[in-house]
Amino acid sequence: MKQNKYDNKIFFEKYSKMDRSTKGLAGAGEWETLQKLLPGFQDKRVLDLGCGFGWHCQYAIEHGAKAVTGVDISEKMLTVAKDKTDDKIRYIQMPIEDITFDENSFDVVISSLTFHYIESFEQIVEKISCCLVPNGDFVFSIEHPVFTAYGSQDWYYDENGNILHFPIDNYFSEGERTANFLGEKVIKYHKTLTTYLNGLLQGGFEVTGIVEPQPSEHLLHTVKGMRDELRRPMMLIISAKKK
Amino acid sequence: MKQNKYDNKIFFEKYSKMDRSTKGLAGAGEWETLQKLLPGFQDKRVLDLGCGFGWHCQYAIEHGAKAVTGVDISEKMLTVAKDKTDDKIRYIQMPIEDITFDENSFDVVISSLTFHYIESFEQIVEKISCCLVPNGDFVFSIEHPVFTAYGSQDWYYDENGNILHFPIDNYFSEGERTANFLGEKVIKYHKTLTTYLNGLLQGGFEVTGIVEPQPSEHLLHTVKGMRDELRRPMMLIISAKKK
Repeated sequence: MKQNKYDNKIFFEKYSKMDRSTKGLAGAGEWETLQKLLPGFQDKRVLDLGCGFGWHCQYAIEHGAKAVTGVDISEKMLTVAKDKTDDKIRYIQMPIEDITFDENSFDVVISSLTFHYIESFEQIVEKISCCLVPNGDFVFSIEHPVFTAYGSQDWYYDENGNILHFPIDNYFSEGERTANFLGEKVIKYHKTLTTYLNGLLQGGFEVTGIVEPQPSEHLLHTVKGMRDELRRPMMLIISAKKK
Repeated sequence: MKQNKYDNKIFFEKYSKMDRSTKGLAGAGEWETLQKLLPGFQDKRVLDLGCGFGWHCQYAIEHGAKAVTGVDISEKMLTVAKDKTDDKIRYIQMPIEDITFDENSFDVVISSLTFHYIESFEQIVEKISCCLVPNGDFVFSIEHPVFTAYGSQDWYYDENGNILHFPIDNYFSEGERTANFLGEKVIKYHKTLTTYLNGLLQGGFEVTGIVEPQPSEHLLHTVKGMRDELRRPMMLIISAKKK
């Protein structure tokens, strides 16, 4: 199933009001960590899978990328991206499952919080490996398998509404989950850590970095509820190099 | 703190009755997965950290290892190991934190379910990197960060004693946890996935395999409660190569 929840009017409006939408990269809690794992962009050809509003594309262009391509399934998101980011960026509206770029088309592939919307990670790795040059960089963030396993992506509460802990269940049953995101039902695909990491290794990549981002001191002090994000890992950021 | 729970009489007796103690490797649910990640042992010098009853040492000897060294803190376990395994194996009673082998002493380092008893993974990686030859193999299993985070290592139950899910909490607060293992209190050290994996990468290793073992079909059908192990990841097995 190729999902396009972001073209749902209500969902899109809610998403557009999130910090990461209005403030760009500075509004994304994990950006500081992701940034450290990114390669240099100078003179590189960059592909961003699930580019959304194009913030990462814009960052790559501003840091010297020779050419930047953003792919996203959502028409609404790409409309904003085209309006708000550099004209040199090429945007393609397409499900990521359908990309077919020529061999050695890119020096860097990035993807932010997108692959948990896609059923087969193996297939994506194969497609990326094909269009990435040898020694090319592949850096991506995903929702952590701990965060996607149970399904609801919500805490477990006591009868007074206080958080007790975060629940894990059905960890080894990969596949569709219905999560509650911004008050809307969103389909995501749970995959194990093994599927992501061994998938990369088997797909011909060397893993060069793995970090579970934690909120910065600044966010811990300014955003309500952010301290709870120290209780569970919500995201995973991985950097890899094509062998 | 260097722990030696295994020399506690009551704990040792209980541990000695577990399948993995009486049946050896065949009684360890994760062995089938671990075995696939092991390198060839022919003519290799092998070090086993936290060797316990020596089952992995014996396996290495039987598979052609030139020399095998097993290190464990527990006198009781090593007494059994010396009695039950090949005389060519050298056993050393010592906390793993204290090992100081010469450079290039080993071609392979293995460790089974031991590092969660040790506070600093970084220190261990440094010591292993020192005594392992370049391109040497390092393969180990640990309790999964998901399994160690909360502390009790027990499921969360409803009022009738039925399993609801497995709880996660305090994920980013690494350090001491008191787990209930075989009805005894055991101190373990929770570490995040980032600490283990990025620790390896930063320590000069290439990660070559990562698998969260699942119970085999045979175990699912013969061991009561084993099906619940599909609901949470209990272990993580990692293979790496010194660069």
